Amino acid sequence: MSLQVIVSVGSMNNIISFNKVSGILVCEAGCILENLISFLDNQGFIMPLDLGAKGSCQIGGNVSTNAGGLRLVRYGSLHGNVLGVEAVLANGDVLDMLGTLRKDNTGYDLKHLFIGSEGSLGIVTKVSILTPPKLSSVNIAFLACKDYSSCQKLLMEAKRKLGEILSAFEFLDNQAMNLVLHHLDGVRNPLPASMHSFYVLIETTGSDESYDREKLEAFLLSSMEGGLISDGVLAQDINQASSFWRIREGVPEALMKAGAVYKYDLSLPVEKMYNLVDDMRVRLGNLAKVVGFGHLGDGNLHLNISAPQYDDTILEQIEPYVYEWTFKHRGSISAEHGLGLMKANKIHYSKSPETVQIMASIKKLLDPNGILNPYKVLPH
Amino acid sequence: MSLQVIVSVGSMNNIISFNKVSGILVCEAGCILENLISFLDNQGFIMPLDLGAKGSCQIGGNVSTNAGGLRLVRYGSLHGNVLGVEAVLANGDVLDMLGTLRKDNTGYDLKHLFIGSEGSLGIVTKVSILTPPKLSSVNIAFLACKDYSSCQKLLMEAKRKLGEILSAFEFLDNQAMNLVLHHLDGVRNPLPASMHSFYVLIETTGSDESYDREKLEAFLLSSMEGGLISDGVLAQDINQASSFWRIREGVPEALMKAGAVYKYDLSLPVEKMYNLVDDMRVRLGNLAKVVGFGHLGDGNLHLNISAPQYDDTILEQIEPYVYEWTFKHRGSISAEHGLGLMKANKIHYSKSPETVQIMASIKKLLDPNGILNPYKVLPH
Repeated sequence: MSLQVIVSVGSMNNIISFNKVSGILVCEAGCILENLISFLDNQGFIMPLDLGAKGSCQIGGNVSTNAGGLRLVRYGSLHGNVLGVEAVLANGDVLDMLGTLRKDNTGYDLKHLFIGSEGSLGIVTKVSILTPPKLSSVNIAFLACKDYSSCQKLLMEAKRKLGEILSAFEFLDNQAMNLVLHHLDGVRNPLPASMHSFYVLIETTGSDESYDREKLEAFLLSSMEGGLISDGVLAQDINQASSFWRIREGVPEALMKAGAVYKYDLSLPVEKMYNLVDDMRVRLGNLAKVVGFGHLGDGNLHLNISAPQYDDTILEQIEPYVYEWTFKHRGSISAEHGLGLMKANKIHYSKSPETVQIMASIKKLLDPNGILNPYKVLPH
Repeated sequence: MSLQVIVSVGSMNNIISFNKVSGILVCEAGCILENLISFLDNQGFIMPLDLGAKGSCQIGGNVSTNAGGLRLVRYGSLHGNVLGVEAVLANGDVLDMLGTLRKDNTGYDLKHLFIGSEGSLGIVTKVSILTPPKLSSVNIAFLACKDYSSCQKLLMEAKRKLGEILSAFEFLDNQAMNLVLHHLDGVRNPLPASMHSFYVLIETTGSDESYDREKLEAFLLSSMEGGLISDGVLAQDINQASSFWRIREGVPEALMKAGAVYKYDLSLPVEKMYNLVDDMRVRLGNLAKVVGFGHLGDGNLHLNISAPQYDDTILEQIEPYVYEWTFKHRGSISAEHGLGLMKANKIHYSKSPETVQIMASIKKLLDPNGILNPYKVLPH
């Protein structure tokens, strides 16, 4: 019998400092993300990450899992935004890497080992993070595209024409839309005239309401004229904006309500991303519904397969095919959710044996007895 | 007698791929930064880093030293922008971490160990990097402030009011300005009416020429009215813009021409940064000129001390005082230039003993015989 200990940092939930000149926040690991968002809102700043689970997730966990989320396309990953961490090692040593500097080239930047290593090298106890100023003008458009190629071209155009104000570029296919409309109360299709193959949510964030809106309107007009979008609507108020986000963020919930679901969180080259959804539909035929949605702007596909109940026949059609497909296209089998227990043995689909070997050596160096988050991340 | 080998990757200078949808560039380590900038310019993209040495420095070196430079305030550090590297280890193993994905949470993100470790853990041979779209509208203002406190307030205001278009916030003090005016041919003061205590260069980059210019003009007007700036001028054409940058970028060259120079590249909390310059002036009196300039937007001070010739009396007044001062304020003794040979033994001013110990263990793990860039980075 082996004893297992669960460590909670939930009561370490103090904000240690906030500097309004630099925008640098230092806090304890147990701070709930949403509380940090509220705190910063009062100071005129925002967190560089936002995700559906913000009401319960803690910043220490966000950092330990290198959480991605909705603002990554604009503000980049936590490896760029986290300036420092304090971590407790397996032997009890407290490692003070809690810098509050944007630039620091003194030796190896060890904090990156603790960002995304899922607690397996140390327990993150404090975090220092660079927060951007809050910009007052947010606009959201909900659009329809006739095919995936149009979604891609729209992304390229949005990057160029919306440039510095683009803050989200999300997509869902019509299977995902159908599920949301069918299973979530009070959700309706903002483009009800006909069903389209793909839906795209574009958000802009800037500092000038009238100018930003004009810019987005001009972009939508030219995209409509160029045939990239078939239909579209711009949110007229904050309630409509929330209802657009509700559709995109509601997909996982709708899938849960629809029955059994096999979930894959993949990074793939944008131009090939949706081919996997098509291929999977061919493989599964009538056995299950294949749903594709996610953060198109980051090349991050959430491939979800929905069936009345869990069934080994279905699973055999999906795995290892989905991993092999991802490997073939040099993708990542875990874009933003981490490997955890279920995918630890599948790391070789995304990382070379030499790289995994060095990860194991570093694990052994920092946690020789393997007591931190055992059986996770690295292959057994 | 010990044999030393110098490895050049200068002939590994091919661009391997560029993806116009994602903006991801993959190239060999020997590519000259300026060549990459030109290549991307033709594709409608830019490199997320730019520095004075671009005509000769190589991307592999930029990554290995985690180069900062002029665009960091907008696009962040290389830890955020570099998506992958290939590195050759001390034992000859080629470590393939050359991902081209914005998100990849499969195991420890080892590439960060090679960013900024100055070649001491492996030789970077290929790089994959996320490049932002080129935005067509660039505006530059050259401003005067009466004191350092005004420079700081101006930075806060610029972050909020210029928001998403702010792309550089640089400063120099009047000592630096005097040196540039005195030692560099063809440079003249854009604000000649009187000498001011501080000069600030603000650059904006956006996608709409007339709007961006209006925005910057409105910002300058309100800052002038609020007393934050005493004088200012907006570049009217590309030549004038270059002449403004020439002043800021010309400071190191002017210092070289002025005689001996003691150079320190420090990160400090913005609000305390200039106190060090003042303190140093008090310590040195008439012995030497103390010059402060740098990337104010990043909290990065270049403290340079200029004297007719090198003199141990001067050095004793500077060191270890400057390091102790930086330590006391939790700054970095090497913000963007790395520790190299000269500062390897000074790492403890910026990093805790436990952290340095782990760095040494990782060095031993990856380079047990200490053959890669010996005597550098870590204390002897």
